[in-house]
Amino acid sequence: MTRIRHVCPAVLTFCAAVSLNAQPDLRTIVKAWVDSHQQQIVAELIQLLSIPNIAADRPNIRRNAVALVSMLRQRGFTPELLETEGNPLVYGELRVPGASRTLLLYAHYDGQPVEPKSWKQEDPFSPVVRTGRVDQGGQKVADLASVTKFEDDWRVYARSASDDKSPIVALCAALDALKASGLVPTSNLRVVLDGEEEASSPSLVPAIGRYGQKLRADAIIILDGPGHSSGRPTIVFGARGIVTFDLTVFGPKVGAHSGNYGNWMPNPALRLASLLSSMKNDDGRVTVPGFYDAVTPFSAADRALLDGVPDDSERMLKTFGIAKPERGFPKLQEAVQYPTLNIRGLASSHVGPGARTIIPDRAVAAMDIRLVKETTAADLIEKLQGHIRRQGYHLVGDEPDDATRAEHDKIARLAVSGSSTRAYRTSPDDPQATAVIGAITRTYGAPPVLIRTLGGTVPIAQFIDALSFPAIGLPVVNFDNNQHEENENLRIGHLFEAVVTIAALLRM
Amino acid sequence: MTRIRHVCPAVLTFCAAVSLNAQPDLRTIVKAWVDSHQQQIVAELIQLLSIPNIAADRPNIRRNAVALVSMLRQRGFTPELLETEGNPLVYGELRVPGASRTLLLYAHYDGQPVEPKSWKQEDPFSPVVRTGRVDQGGQKVADLASVTKFEDDWRVYARSASDDKSPIVALCAALDALKASGLVPTSNLRVVLDGEEEASSPSLVPAIGRYGQKLRADAIIILDGPGHSSGRPTIVFGARGIVTFDLTVFGPKVGAHSGNYGNWMPNPALRLASLLSSMKNDDGRVTVPGFYDAVTPFSAADRALLDGVPDDSERMLKTFGIAKPERGFPKLQEAVQYPTLNIRGLASSHVGPGARTIIPDRAVAAMDIRLVKETTAADLIEKLQGHIRRQGYHLVGDEPDDATRAEHDKIARLAVSGSSTRAYRTSPDDPQATAVIGAITRTYGAPPVLIRTLGGTVPIAQFIDALSFPAIGLPVVNFDNNQHEENENLRIGHLFEAVVTIAALLRM
Repeated sequence: MTRIRHVCPAVLTFCAAVSLNAQPDLRTIVKAWVDSHQQQIVAELIQLLSIPNIAADRPNIRRNAVALVSMLRQRGFTPELLETEGNPLVYGELRVPGASRTLLLYAHYDGQPVEPKSWKQEDPFSPVVRTGRVDQGGQKVADLASVTKFEDDWRVYARSASDDKSPIVALCAALDALKASGLVPTSNLRVVLDGEEEASSPSLVPAIGRYGQKLRADAIIILDGPGHSSGRPTIVFGARGIVTFDLTVFGPKVGAHSGNYGNWMPNPALRLASLLSSMKNDDGRVTVPGFYDAVTPFSAADRALLDGVPDDSERMLKTFGIAKPERGFPKLQEAVQYPTLNIRGLASSHVGPGARTIIPDRAVAAMDIRLVKETTAADLIEKLQGHIRRQGYHLVGDEPDDATRAEHDKIARLAVSGSSTRAYRTSPDDPQATAVIGAITRTYGAPPVLIRTLGGTVPIAQFIDALSFPAIGLPVVNFDNNQHEENENLRIGHLFEAVVTIAALLRM
Repeated sequence: MTRIRHVCPAVLTFCAAVSLNAQPDLRTIVKAWVDSHQQQIVAELIQLLSIPNIAADRPNIRRNAVALVSMLRQRGFTPELLETEGNPLVYGELRVPGASRTLLLYAHYDGQPVEPKSWKQEDPFSPVVRTGRVDQGGQKVADLASVTKFEDDWRVYARSASDDKSPIVALCAALDALKASGLVPTSNLRVVLDGEEEASSPSLVPAIGRYGQKLRADAIIILDGPGHSSGRPTIVFGARGIVTFDLTVFGPKVGAHSGNYGNWMPNPALRLASLLSSMKNDDGRVTVPGFYDAVTPFSAADRALLDGVPDDSERMLKTFGIAKPERGFPKLQEAVQYPTLNIRGLASSHVGPGARTIIPDRAVAAMDIRLVKETTAADLIEKLQGHIRRQGYHLVGDEPDDATRAEHDKIARLAVSGSSTRAYRTSPDDPQATAVIGAITRTYGAPPVLIRTLGGTVPIAQFIDALSFPAIGLPVVNFDNNQHEENENLRIGHLFEAVVTIAALLRM
């Protein structure tokens, strides 16, 4: 075992070259074990999926936590519940004699709320195995107990099938597979399973104060999210942050008759339109001065990283019915390296049958800014406020009073909602990152898809930021999993491959 | 009587000069009659206001119509109900021996729908007399039967108190006053009372085919709407028309994650904002090429007319809490001489607590164009469509299909709602118009406020257009009457003065 345990975590090319010779059989070993234990792996997943797991459902959340403690104990962890103000964190530690590295493996056991009526099955917590996607005619597999071979394209339908219970089951299976083959992990393992991720993980950062020593590690590995649509193993190094706000332009105190006053009384909906239009050009680039200033130019390595991601934009365009992406950001991977300025909603009086012929009293744009590692919410909001003021607006914090209305022609309010979430990004040159890349490359004989940053935001970012971890995402489920929606599903081939991928990580 | 009956209907200056000497006492005569018949006038109004008059309430509408027939018969009219597909028109004719002119007097007896809970009285159809505005502490006058003197600032609160039953009562009182003084009208009179004005008068134009001869006249006099806020007698020569439409810019087929796709997927809310912004400049002038082309320059007489209207814009600005009017149209009277392009509503996904961090699937602006006499809906909509196409949009009539989405980067829909209403405008040099101006000037010893065109739109415009009448509006109620809203009211001083004003018209 020790022969292949310490693998150089240095540069990728070196690792890849070494590994292809040094450890040709981990994938084969684990796959063989998986092939002969399909029943057991799927059964454990189905059992876990049968426990409802909405964050607000305290009794069932605790049933999940108890089940997970038991699952971890079976794999040699010393498990416990870390109690918080909210749902407990399920925690486990597995020390490996001689290991000098400690990995904190993160996943979550809560799921998005469900609307059972929208599902194509009776209950999102009574898992159904189908022979394919339900919207492509996949049929229910009736007698699971007698199935000896699960086809790769079969799917398990249930809430959290993909997000995020299957990575936990795959982790357990990977440990079983290693053990059956006489292999042990090459790192000390700590596992933390979040019970409130879909409710923005409010207890995770506070837990640091209470359980700090248990949560420290050389790197955090995030077992969450879908892999690249190509089906190749995927590693994610970051995610964008977010700040949301409402921008209101004020008009007359009450809606004014569009005939009596049309042409004479300024219209706040038009003013909002002009203001929004002044913030971005037709290419989709933000024109607020300094908005992109903090973003550092791509290095040759960054560029290589972005260019290395298989382009699946044609599929996206077709799925969404869009002819062309923004001219300013034609490549999706590049687009998500920059902060955004997005209008997520507009409202002013009424449209459709309820519309009244008035000059509205106000117009509101709900907006969000996605942050990248180099940008902060405070800085970009300040730049935006400066821009709005330069368009002639007086910014208020509340409803304008009569004196304010009499003094200022153009009045607006920018109200930031709640707290912002920072972006995080780990360098792919970080030693732990190169070790993970190396391990996956060795095992598969080819490099994984490397995602410099996700476009979206994850609650774990706060936790990563607080502990300054190198953070490495290892998403293992299918991209077309209906995550957060009805008919969430997991492709079984992805589950089995996840066991191999996680085994590779454990042996890095 | 005949001594003062025929007064020259020629040019205003001549009439004014003559009349100040020729007929100094009509106002005195009528005022004296009104002073001694206050009880009777107010009682007749309250009786009429006590009959509910929502256009959709067929049984009560007919009770109103029957009561009106009786009121007209008492004043010597030959009344009848002109049945239509909807509510009946109440019609009456009063021929005057020797009169060579026929006036069609228009008013309406239906009222806006009510929400009784919002009123400061039990029932909008149980009129209440108050000693002033209810929002300024006006107290209920308890025993109306014993009131011998109604103060000018008292108010009658009820639905249709101002809009539009009081002009009908004032017309009846004016005829009573003339009769009591041994005077007769100088024109043959035809009265048509609309029972569906607040429902857009759908039966008025069709009635022309069925009752054409009864509806013809040398001019139509519209007894509707509020007089100028100065309290001076007011004559209105026109109203703007209107066309309404929804403008939709299409985005992805379904809302797309603003993190995963932000910067890369075009945002329809931003595109709509830019498109709207391209239609008007910061001064409030429409920048759609040719939009104002049809509007003829003001003549010196037009300019004098506009400049002659007392400026009450300071009051309007204060009421609405607006610091400044549009730079492009600083004077309200000038502003309403031009067509508008107004955003009356905006919608795209959600704002506020329900907002989701997405790129919305579409953004919609509900809009209206107010038309002036020289502009047509078809022409301005066509110019707007041309402008939208020049901004790179493909215009669709329906939801875009996949092929359309794949072919066109920018897709929008401009959907005109229902039928448009044309503007109308009578020249103040029209002989009937100068006659009315002359009559009012004579009676009051000063010219009335002359409004070239109202900013708003009136359903009667269709009827005026169909019969090519010179149309002269004689609005007699107070401007602050809460028309169409809760707590609609009539200032009693305006009711009494309306009797004088209408008497002047009848003696023109």
